[in-house]
Amino acid sequence: MSLLDRIEACHRHDLARFRPFLVAGERLGYVRHDLAEQFGRFPSVFTAHSDALSVKEHLAQFDSRTAAIDSVARELLDRGIVTGWRNELFPVAVRYGAPPLFDLERALVPVLGVKAYGVHVNGYVRDGEKIRLWVGRRSDDRPIEPGKLDHLVAGGLPSHISPFDNLMKEAAEEASVPKELARRARPAGAISYRMELGGHLRDDTLFAYDLELPADFVPQNRDGEIASFALMPLDEVERILATTERFKFNVGLVVIDFMIRMGHLTPERDDYCDLALALAKGSN
Amino acid sequence: MSLLDRIEACHRHDLARFRPFLVAGERLGYVRHDLAEQFGRFPSVFTAHSDALSVKEHLAQFDSRTAAIDSVARELLDRGIVTGWRNELFPVAVRYGAPPLFDLERALVPVLGVKAYGVHVNGYVRDGEKIRLWVGRRSDDRPIEPGKLDHLVAGGLPSHISPFDNLMKEAAEEASVPKELARRARPAGAISYRMELGGHLRDDTLFAYDLELPADFVPQNRDGEIASFALMPLDEVERILATTERFKFNVGLVVIDFMIRMGHLTPERDDYCDLALALAKGSN
Repeated sequence: MSLLDRIEACHRHDLARFRPFLVAGERLGYVRHDLAEQFGRFPSVFTAHSDALSVKEHLAQFDSRTAAIDSVARELLDRGIVTGWRNELFPVAVRYGAPPLFDLERALVPVLGVKAYGVHVNGYVRDGEKIRLWVGRRSDDRPIEPGKLDHLVAGGLPSHISPFDNLMKEAAEEASVPKELARRARPAGAISYRMELGGHLRDDTLFAYDLELPADFVPQNRDGEIASFALMPLDEVERILATTERFKFNVGLVVIDFMIRMGHLTPERDDYCDLALALAKGSN
Repeated sequence: MSLLDRIEACHRHDLARFRPFLVAGERLGYVRHDLAEQFGRFPSVFTAHSDALSVKEHLAQFDSRTAAIDSVARELLDRGIVTGWRNELFPVAVRYGAPPLFDLERALVPVLGVKAYGVHVNGYVRDGEKIRLWVGRRSDDRPIEPGKLDHLVAGGLPSHISPFDNLMKEAAEEASVPKELARRARPAGAISYRMELGGHLRDDTLFAYDLELPADFVPQNRDGEIASFALMPLDEVERILATTERFKFNVGLVVIDFMIRMGHLTPERDDYCDLALALAKGSN
């Protein structure tokens, strides 16, 4: 096992298992073949062809499209085909920054394989030349990756909130970071990956932020998502990432990027270019 | 014109104009078709087929391969087919970190389209929340991109020197950075690009370093490569990059990456993901 394995795990997928999901002639996602057929049973909203699942063209407006897709989603929830309803809407657009074509219940995001965005905060403390990273342990009742190691603050980006405002909100909920401290978080890049998870395609872009914290700050979780926090030397973080699967998959990606950006990993490593190129791979 | 244009210019190429350059069965570069035929005129060293240029298999050792290729290179120099001899050897390997298969005179690196590496140093000064970047203007007699704006310190990575040692050497020669200051440079990532330049394919990976400098440091060039230095607010650097071609092409790439990593560009920009993905594109 190696750092490279952690990155490559986040790019593993086989598009042959999926068909494109189209809205207004644009591919917005990838849906598993058997699930495409389930959506096709609602012919007033979806058309399932063998080569694509499309939203009907008469649903040409944001509101009508959002409502129609939502009604099918709730039907599929009733039938047990969709699970893990979150009551949270994510925007779905042709590309980042474009106006969304519709809003989608979060549970459906991986089901339709549409792009989602998130903010991940590397909360760290400087100790002379050394860096220590605040690492959370996810609660045992989390639907995804229970018990795994996580960022100080991380969260998906719902509709109608900017990345930075979302960061401020999550920083308060997940780690009780005071506003004046959270505000110092600095955006540091975007990392994309596309992987199969739970039979669905996750097509995510994570906005990485760095937040330098004073040595006396101690995070406290409020929303029950994190069981405990620990401040780990970056050497230990690296060892855990290189030799175990204890970190949540996409957190590992952002932390390896952090270790590269902070100069913890250096070009003197034979695998330095492999790591940098693998991190960039999600852009394909 | 936009920042995105600056990045995309570094990825522009058409492989149809080139054929693979093979050594020991591995593709190590891309050579223009007409030049492949020139190399093919030395049949004891090269075989030019319509679909590839190969080094003869009997040249199976580093030393013999290096010497044989060098002798052809000098012939092509005499015939005016190769120009700009540098008297500097670059290592050529299957991948970064692997033992080189041969050393190659720098002038031949783009001609054979083999991968090269370089170090680029973002030398910056903090001024409260603001960042200013030291920018050099290349001398008017430089063979490549004369008069263009450049990094404080940058240089290709020759054989038998580590990236960091090369940085230390270039920092002294190009900007008179004292050793104890240059030593603080922190590696921050690798950026790859593949572009056509002067009829050749440049396939480069640049190691980005950040070097925070005290406000009273003033760089001075020693080797004649830089005509003058200026300390520019990042806003001005951004404006120049977005609206002109005054920066050397690959310097722009590393500086845009720096502006992303330092949080000067933020995810609130509609083109943030496009910029991050375009920077990562060289990994394809």
